[in-house]
Amino acid sequence: MKRIACCSAALGALVAATAAEAQGPAQAPTQAPTWSVPAENQRCPSKWGAGDERGSGNLMKPQVVLDTVKLIKTGEVIDLAHVLGGTMPFFGTRRFDIHLKRTFMNAFSNERGSNEEMVLSEIGQVGTQFDGFAHQSWRNQHYNCFKTDEISSRGGFTKLGVENAPAFITRGVLIDVAGFKGVEMLGDSYEITVDDLQGALKKQNLTLKPADAVIIHTGWGKLYGKDNARFVKSCPGIGVKAAEWLASQSPVLLGSDNWPVEVAPNPDPQLSLPVHQIALVVNGIHLLENLKLDEMVAKNVHEFAFFMVPLKLKGGTGSTVSPIAVR
Amino acid sequence: MKRIACCSAALGALVAATAAEAQGPAQAPTQAPTWSVPAENQRCPSKWGAGDERGSGNLMKPQVVLDTVKLIKTGEVIDLAHVLGGTMPFFGTRRFDIHLKRTFMNAFSNERGSNEEMVLSEIGQVGTQFDGFAHQSWRNQHYNCFKTDEISSRGGFTKLGVENAPAFITRGVLIDVAGFKGVEMLGDSYEITVDDLQGALKKQNLTLKPADAVIIHTGWGKLYGKDNARFVKSCPGIGVKAAEWLASQSPVLLGSDNWPVEVAPNPDPQLSLPVHQIALVVNGIHLLENLKLDEMVAKNVHEFAFFMVPLKLKGGTGSTVSPIAVR
Amino acid sequence: MKRIACCSAALGALVAATAAEAQGPAQAPTQAPTWSVPAENQRCPSKWGAGDERGSGNLMKPQVVLDTVKLIKTGEVIDLAHVLGGTMPFFGTRRFDIHLKRTFMNAFSNERGSNEEMVLSEIGQVGTQFDGFAHQSWRNQHYNCFKTDEISSRGGFTKLGVENAPAFITRGVLIDVAGFKGVEMLGDSYEITVDDLQGALKKQNLTLKPADAVIIHTGWGKLYGKDNARFVKSCPGIGVKAAEWLASQSPVLLGSDNWPVEVAPNPDPQLSLPVHQIALVVNGIHLLENLKLDEMVAKNVHEFAFFMVPLKLKGGTGSTVSPIAVR
Amino acid sequence: MKRIACCSAALGALVAATAAEAQGPAQAPTQAPTWSVPAENQRCPSKWGAGDERGSGNLMKPQVVLDTVKLIKTGEVIDLAHVLGGTMPFFGTRRFDIHLKRTFMNAFSNERGSNEEMVLSEIGQVGTQFDGFAHQSWRNQHYNCFKTDEISSRGGFTKLGVENAPAFITRGVLIDVAGFKGVEMLGDSYEITVDDLQGALKKQNLTLKPADAVIIHTGWGKLYGKDNARFVKSCPGIGVKAAEWLASQSPVLLGSDNWPVEVAPNPDPQLSLPVHQIALVVNGIHLLENLKLDEMVAKNVHEFAFFMVPLKLKGGTGSTVSPIAVR
Repeated sequence: MKRIACCSAALGALVAATAAEAQGPAQAPTQAPTWSVPAENQRCPSKWGAGDERGSGNLMKPQVVLDTVKLIKTGEVIDLAHVLGGTMPFFGTRRFDIHLKRTFMNAFSNERGSNEEMVLSEIGQVGTQFDGFAHQSWRNQHYNCFKTDEISSRGGFTKLGVENAPAFITRGVLIDVAGFKGVEMLGDSYEITVDDLQGALKKQNLTLKPADAVIIHTGWGKLYGKDNARFVKSCPGIGVKAAEWLASQSPVLLGSDNWPVEVAPNPDPQLSLPVHQIALVVNGIHLLENLKLDEMVAKNVHEFAFFMVPLKLKGGTGSTVSPIAVR
Repeated sequence: MKRIACCSAALGALVAATAAEAQGPAQAPTQAPTWSVPAENQRCPSKWGAGDERGSGNLMKPQVVLDTVKLIKTGEVIDLAHVLGGTMPFFGTRRFDIHLKRTFMNAFSNERGSNEEMVLSEIGQVGTQFDGFAHQSWRNQHYNCFKTDEISSRGGFTKLGVENAPAFITRGVLIDVAGFKGVEMLGDSYEITVDDLQGALKKQNLTLKPADAVIIHTGWGKLYGKDNARFVKSCPGIGVKAAEWLASQSPVLLGSDNWPVEVAPNPDPQLSLPVHQIALVVNGIHLLENLKLDEMVAKNVHEFAFFMVPLKLKGGTGSTVSPIAVR
Repeated sequence: MKRIACCSAALGALVAATAAEAQGPAQAPTQAPTWSVPAENQRCPSKWGAGDERGSGNLMKPQVVLDTVKLIKTGEVIDLAHVLGGTMPFFGTRRFDIHLKRTFMNAFSNERGSNEEMVLSEIGQVGTQFDGFAHQSWRNQHYNCFKTDEISSRGGFTKLGVENAPAFITRGVLIDVAGFKGVEMLGDSYEITVDDLQGALKKQNLTLKPADAVIIHTGWGKLYGKDNARFVKSCPGIGVKAAEWLASQSPVLLGSDNWPVEVAPNPDPQLSLPVHQIALVVNGIHLLENLKLDEMVAKNVHEFAFFMVPLKLKGGTGSTVSPIAVR
Repeated sequence: MKRIACCSAALGALVAATAAEAQGPAQAPTQAPTWSVPAENQRCPSKWGAGDERGSGNLMKPQVVLDTVKLIKTGEVIDLAHVLGGTMPFFGTRRFDIHLKRTFMNAFSNERGSNEEMVLSEIGQVGTQFDGFAHQSWRNQHYNCFKTDEISSRGGFTKLGVENAPAFITRGVLIDVAGFKGVEMLGDSYEITVDDLQGALKKQNLTLKPADAVIIHTGWGKLYGKDNARFVKSCPGIGVKAAEWLASQSPVLLGSDNWPVEVAPNPDPQLSLPVHQIALVVNGIHLLENLKLDEMVAKNVHEFAFFMVPLKLKGGTGSTVSPIAVR
């Protein structure tokens, strides 16, 4: 059965365009879903307290910064972000249009010309992107049980906006699952298991600790900008089990070189990107998508100082970002 | 004579709306301009070589990173960026509109709702912003003598795009000129002198060195979001002399808590924001505008680790940014 | 009590910005509202049948066209539309931005240059505008009891879109209420009565008949583009009684030289633009706002051939239009 | 030789994307171009006088209206416009995006909900569209020798804007060339000759007269929305000779069911859409593109009352329109 699990970032148009998906699973379920959102009293208030809007962002403490900079040995900076431009893969009707304006020439003696561009885009949900907690919900409920209809307005969210996210300066751990499996790229809808993660970490002589930025290398990024149709059609990534194990390690964020961090479509055809709910809605852990990891892997960088500061888009659901690794 | 020196970011509409300015100085000049763009052979090729598109960005070397992290003693992070939202001051016809889309509910068993926003904005030239070299020119010439009509297209610049800018990890030096002068805010069109800069640095026991991110506190930022009309009408800042002295110190960028870094209008009514040309066109030094410096000044932070990674907007003239100080 | 009755076109932002309005009437009502939406079985199915999406548009029959052209005696054309540009009054966060692109020069022997503009706007709800039935609702119900959540998508309405509206070629009747009352402009929140309408018609020797485009002159249009703040703050216009009488005459549309056709705020502080619901939701009669009527009044044109063809915006809530009168 | 003659509406991106076209003809010309723009003194001042901005729009006189309405015998209205939506063919980077906003519920007793959509589009140059004189130039010169750099601003044209266009109420003449040639659709790059036009008119027992809206049926419209790739790749239409003959008949506009009215690519590989210059730049005659003519042809309507009122987009290069035929 061909099924497009609509993307991490609300693949609305695409799903809407195909009736079967819009209606849910194509076949009548013969068994209960393999995962469902925990009861409200198991989610709320979050461990950061009632009313908290930062979730895992609370982990960003000064001591983490001090520990992080100790990881810097050579001063080398490696970009983890793709260039924002027309060759990016897009989901559904999302766009990224740059319109360079006509040059304005200021009529003074120094003949200064000025240029600027108008950008039209779902700026929080294109390219290398950081998901905030307003981005995803279970029914009408977001992280910490904030309700969509109470915190949304035409101009953005009044709670959980991405402007609440901190600067991320923390240890980055790249888990090279593709490398661990001995392939350049995992299969089109391969679900990464807990064993895969633990095996790869062991091979890399690393263990996770709270506040880590956990970055998973699937190899899928090789398709980014090269075969966009295949890139967005499906992807290998973590599933429910791996996400729950990772969440138990208290990471500050989960990132990957695919578009939803998680496997898509989910092996359970009744589920639509459940890891988005596990991370963003249930545990208040941010997601970081469409990372550029080729240089990291080529250089065998598995532990590094991770730096990222999302744009302070007031009421935004996410932010296009330019994360970097420093070692 | 009231004159609005059009802003750092191409105050096109505003100037265009007032015929006198659009035509240039209101009065026939009785003397030669106090500054003009140096001859081409004094500007090109730049010191970074013919064809170079990075300018001062070339200063970002691994050793600078290593030196920078040594400045981190407590791990405290201070935001230097204002929130991006509707209360920002805008120049001319610039806009920043967020339209939150209708929630899309995915029809699977886990009832995942998705939200995203459409943003319409001159994204490189609003809020706390980083100026790239495509932003400004002298006549048809940009940094390193790239010609506007040869490197511009409807979709952006084919050379000098902001995607060429590096990650900035370097020493930040805040020169508190307002504090040095004993005021909360410098006068509406006060031109900061070389003596002001050197006096403030001496008081702070600091000297500049190559690759510094030089941040000038004028106090003007107190008006940001509070009296936007006054904020954009004029501002205190550096003039030609101070800019030339700063440029001779090889900074990686010049920033301030006003909108153009420089004094506006320029005391010489024949000149339109000449520091933009001195920095961006002549010397290949980036500008960083609309910084939020109140917390820095309140805490007397004058030397710090500066972190900023512009968005990789392909062919863009600049980038909305979220710089931070770490100490 | 100062109260801004949010505009015909969903003055969302404005209302949202003022808590009292967003919460509803500022004072606890001491009496029942003077009007409420009729029960569902009195509204649905509409007189045009269950599932009908055209409402009064069904009145546009060939015989009406034949009757209309007989009104043309001189061939004179009078514009009823304002120019679409930056000096228009806007409600809330609505925008109309034209960005003229850089000229593209085609590199062939005939050296053809091309220009085009990017327009960003709530195109159906700015300037001289035509309201479709998707624009307004009572709770979740639109005209003919179509439900918002069943007919809306991120890309527009799947039912009741403005593409269903016909070409309007019909008799136009201008009811000059300002002239009847002997003033250039009615008072800031004057409610036009049934007597006003009937008196003015009698003075003009005209009676309404089905399919008429009924245009009401209040004089308020004198402020359009001249004192936009006052123009949108309130306006004279018809209230509940006059609207119900007009609806009983079976017009194809109701238009005026103010922004909501109706009086605003409504004299009953518990009501928010009830005529919008009477016309669009209950009776399926279109509204036509921000008409330019000065030339019509100066020339004493009260009966004329009315021509208007809305843009076929698929799924749109309305259309910016250019109606004309011919006599 | 495959060559895409960039479209009537500035197929910038498409041409720019293919170096050969951007550079001009792929092969060195072995002979002079078959057409070139006449010398300035043959074009300017235009026959409507120096400074005129209306061109053929000046033909719209009251007598024409009176003559036109006499053509109405049955009152039947036939749409000549396609619906504006996502399935339209687009040139290059042009877009037409509708983003339906979140419903705003007004908190008053009558519970009025409001909806509106944000539209992002090159609104003058998508769908069924009307070309104004600012749209095209020869080098830096437009109709009546207005110069691009003197009449353009970031916010639109200060002269020749589409707001100068009149309401078009005139005789429409459909010349069914496809029918005359006995085909449903002319060949992919068939150049319509003067003989074709005169033959078809003779068969239809019609002769052209000044102020006619001349509409040419090629059959190409059958591909519109069905095979958009082929629709925009080339098209049959008039060439230089036919355009010059038509221009000599003083039409108020030339329209067709293809995208540029004219044949594309032009048989002379050195020419890029020369009919655009013949009509818009040299003769001040408007163009009307992407007409929907299937119903007209099915009903054998060749002579009719033509109605169209472009949007008054201040400074615009054209307008999306909804023309109609009435008979």
